[in-house]
Amino acid sequence: MSTIALDPVLSHIDTSFDASVEHLFDLLRIKSISTDPAFKADCRQAAEWLVKDLQSIGFDASVRDTPGHPMVVAHHEGPTDDAPHVLFYGHYDVQPVDPLNLWENDPFAPAVKDMGNGRKIMTGRGTSDDKGQLMTFVEACRAYKAVHGKLPVKVTILFEGEEESGSPSLKPFLEQNKQELKADCALVCDTGMWDEKTPAISVGLRGLVGTEVTVFAADRDLHSGSFGGAAANPIHILSKIVADIHDENGHITIPGFYDGVEETPSQILQSWDNLGRTAENFLGPIGLSVPSGEKGRSVLELTWARPTAEVNGITGGYTGDGFKTVIAAQASAKISFRLVHKQDPEKIRAAFHQFVLDRLPADCRAEFANHGGSPAIQLPYDSSLVNKAKDALSDEWPNPAVLTAMGGSIPIVGDFDTYLGMESLLVGFGLEDDRIHSPNEKYEITSFHKGQRSWARILNALAQK
Amino acid sequence: MSTIALDPVLSHIDTSFDASVEHLFDLLRIKSISTDPAFKADCRQAAEWLVKDLQSIGFDASVRDTPGHPMVVAHHEGPTDDAPHVLFYGHYDVQPVDPLNLWENDPFAPAVKDMGNGRKIMTGRGTSDDKGQLMTFVEACRAYKAVHGKLPVKVTILFEGEEESGSPSLKPFLEQNKQELKADCALVCDTGMWDEKTPAISVGLRGLVGTEVTVFAADRDLHSGSFGGAAANPIHILSKIVADIHDENGHITIPGFYDGVEETPSQILQSWDNLGRTAENFLGPIGLSVPSGEKGRSVLELTWARPTAEVNGITGGYTGDGFKTVIAAQASAKISFRLVHKQDPEKIRAAFHQFVLDRLPADCRAEFANHGGSPAIQLPYDSSLVNKAKDALSDEWPNPAVLTAMGGSIPIVGDFDTYLGMESLLVGFGLEDDRIHSPNEKYEITSFHKGQRSWARILNALAQK
Repeated sequence: MSTIALDPVLSHIDTSFDASVEHLFDLLRIKSISTDPAFKADCRQAAEWLVKDLQSIGFDASVRDTPGHPMVVAHHEGPTDDAPHVLFYGHYDVQPVDPLNLWENDPFAPAVKDMGNGRKIMTGRGTSDDKGQLMTFVEACRAYKAVHGKLPVKVTILFEGEEESGSPSLKPFLEQNKQELKADCALVCDTGMWDEKTPAISVGLRGLVGTEVTVFAADRDLHSGSFGGAAANPIHILSKIVADIHDENGHITIPGFYDGVEETPSQILQSWDNLGRTAENFLGPIGLSVPSGEKGRSVLELTWARPTAEVNGITGGYTGDGFKTVIAAQASAKISFRLVHKQDPEKIRAAFHQFVLDRLPADCRAEFANHGGSPAIQLPYDSSLVNKAKDALSDEWPNPAVLTAMGGSIPIVGDFDTYLGMESLLVGFGLEDDRIHSPNEKYEITSFHKGQRSWARILNALAQK
Repeated sequence: MSTIALDPVLSHIDTSFDASVEHLFDLLRIKSISTDPAFKADCRQAAEWLVKDLQSIGFDASVRDTPGHPMVVAHHEGPTDDAPHVLFYGHYDVQPVDPLNLWENDPFAPAVKDMGNGRKIMTGRGTSDDKGQLMTFVEACRAYKAVHGKLPVKVTILFEGEEESGSPSLKPFLEQNKQELKADCALVCDTGMWDEKTPAISVGLRGLVGTEVTVFAADRDLHSGSFGGAAANPIHILSKIVADIHDENGHITIPGFYDGVEETPSQILQSWDNLGRTAENFLGPIGLSVPSGEKGRSVLELTWARPTAEVNGITGGYTGDGFKTVIAAQASAKISFRLVHKQDPEKIRAAFHQFVLDRLPADCRAEFANHGGSPAIQLPYDSSLVNKAKDALSDEWPNPAVLTAMGGSIPIVGDFDTYLGMESLLVGFGLEDDRIHSPNEKYEITSFHKGQRSWARILNALAQK
């Protein structure tokens, strides 16, 4: 049993909060934009800053070179040899800041803004994604060390510098350092809250398959007067293919598409219903009102736990001003599939290609281009890890924690499972209006403060066997 | 009876042929793309070039302003006051040239290419549609003037600069200048031969309705991870609309679409069958083999005497390189309908708009843009005008002239009937492989040469009372 008291740690976080903000601001001032080669040295500087900071609180930390931007790896022993061992993941790289003219403040001159009614935010690139978030965990560790001189569990830290540029070095690094990085579970802090009062644990992440199809008919553009009514029109063929993907109930008709899709447990669906998200309040702000997908399912289920097929772009023939009576030689569409549960990206891709080929006239042909594929991630709804975190978060915030899913994907979670055989816990304190990837990114002061306290509580809970 | 000998005119055409090519090339170099506002000045330049040229051979010619691109009107007296009077029509505007990278030569740097076996072509935008064609008539007039100092008939010329962009100014211009433009008949040179040895007179012309539909869904582009599966995708909606237009037999499903369509007389269908046009030899040269339209009808009937619906362009969402997981706010398509017999353009347009509205989800909307509309034309099979031209053409070419129909529309023919009460004669020297409206447009040197001789013969025949 842990002999490390939680309350003085929480108090220490409260009293040293201003210092933690100043500390974070030092990191935010470093322009670690990973996707732009001009900021290569800045990325290394951010890694070195983190190493130095972790060393200052007793971690065995080092910058680790990769073919791209470096990783930061750090280790800290637990209170006992058999203490639980967690791997904490975050990323120190940030998105580009253009268009710069839309920022109200310099993106790399972080500042605290008083919004009135007791609400304060911090502004700047990386405040929410992900420097502010990863420092919530580091500050929790700092507080434990300051109060008790030790951490409640054994901690390994992995900070990446390429998350915003496709993480090319991550998989090889995990494979090459499997032994060093393996822990009992992974804690990932790169997600959000349900709302400003309700913490969330993300347990579902949709996968993604991207593909592009080009239908070819005649070997040249044709005059629709001369050939219309006799020559195949690739726009018609492509439109028919797109139209055939969904039936009148929004169900996807590609054979085998739903293989591996599971029904979400009814108690989870019930808990989502309780969140009060309606078609009206979800679609209203974007000018819509009618859910477009599978009938008879809530908008949260549709976006969190059901697979989709969406055409992201289509083009063919004359699309400029005015009119041109042409029958195009080709037409193409970019299509993405969001996957859930155990759907197999490559099977889906192959099934769609066959679906297209089955709809081509004998004298037409199609070409395909691939644009990435990753399976969905489904984490447990009620593991010991999830339940401990849920209770810890519920103790900290006004509302109890909810288990949510995400429409998008976080590939690292699949990689931790594949390469290190670890369950991940996804907890973060971002809000939907944080404008990550956009001008005027911000992070709530409450998120940074209660985020630190939340990790202190979670580490304390994980220490209890 | 005409006292103007034909043979020396034909000889003059032969000996001054190279000069006529150089002359045409001056006109072809002018980028008179009427549908793109960037080329407004070029259109006027082409009109001015033509006026100057017509003045040089004794026409009373002028540029005539319209709200769009200008008309060219020119008059030349006949040999006697009671000589027959013809109105000749052509258009100096051309189609856009994109995709530019598919052109083997600069579209506006015309050139003669030796194809071997004595065959030569000229390449460039407008060589066949319609600058090369209209200059066959001007060159015939030039030869008459050079040899005889006069023309065999009274000639009025009308050159339009908006034919490729829906001719918005034409009807008002005809109405306002009825007295000035009225003649005994109209000669229109914007059509083709049956094949390289067989001249054709077109007696049937499909009408045309152009419309553009834009489907609007959310009020902004959406992330497909966050909203996919719940928010309406306008590309899906538009694709469904396009797919619904045709049933599995190629029949058009828009309610009332076939009102006014007549069955073509069996003896006409028989004469078309005798021309030996098969799906194989019609579609083979463009890389196709399967007729795509209404089942159970020949390709000639499909393209000459049946109505169609063709999407000429479609666009929506992200269409650049790579991939973007976006759900677009809007998607649009340009659609044209070819009409036959007594179909009513405005009824068809209205029926299609309703067809679209019937397929919109309640929270989406559509906007329409109109792009011209004209009914089909059916000309006589055996008038005096047709018979004289038929004989004149049969004298010039290896094979006798045939009466054909056309898949495309030439709205001017209906307008000449409506506003000026004139029968039109449609004679042209284009070939099906001229790639009009496409990259690498060309015109046979033989077409340009024997085309000039053909008009010399037709003018001579029309002079005989």
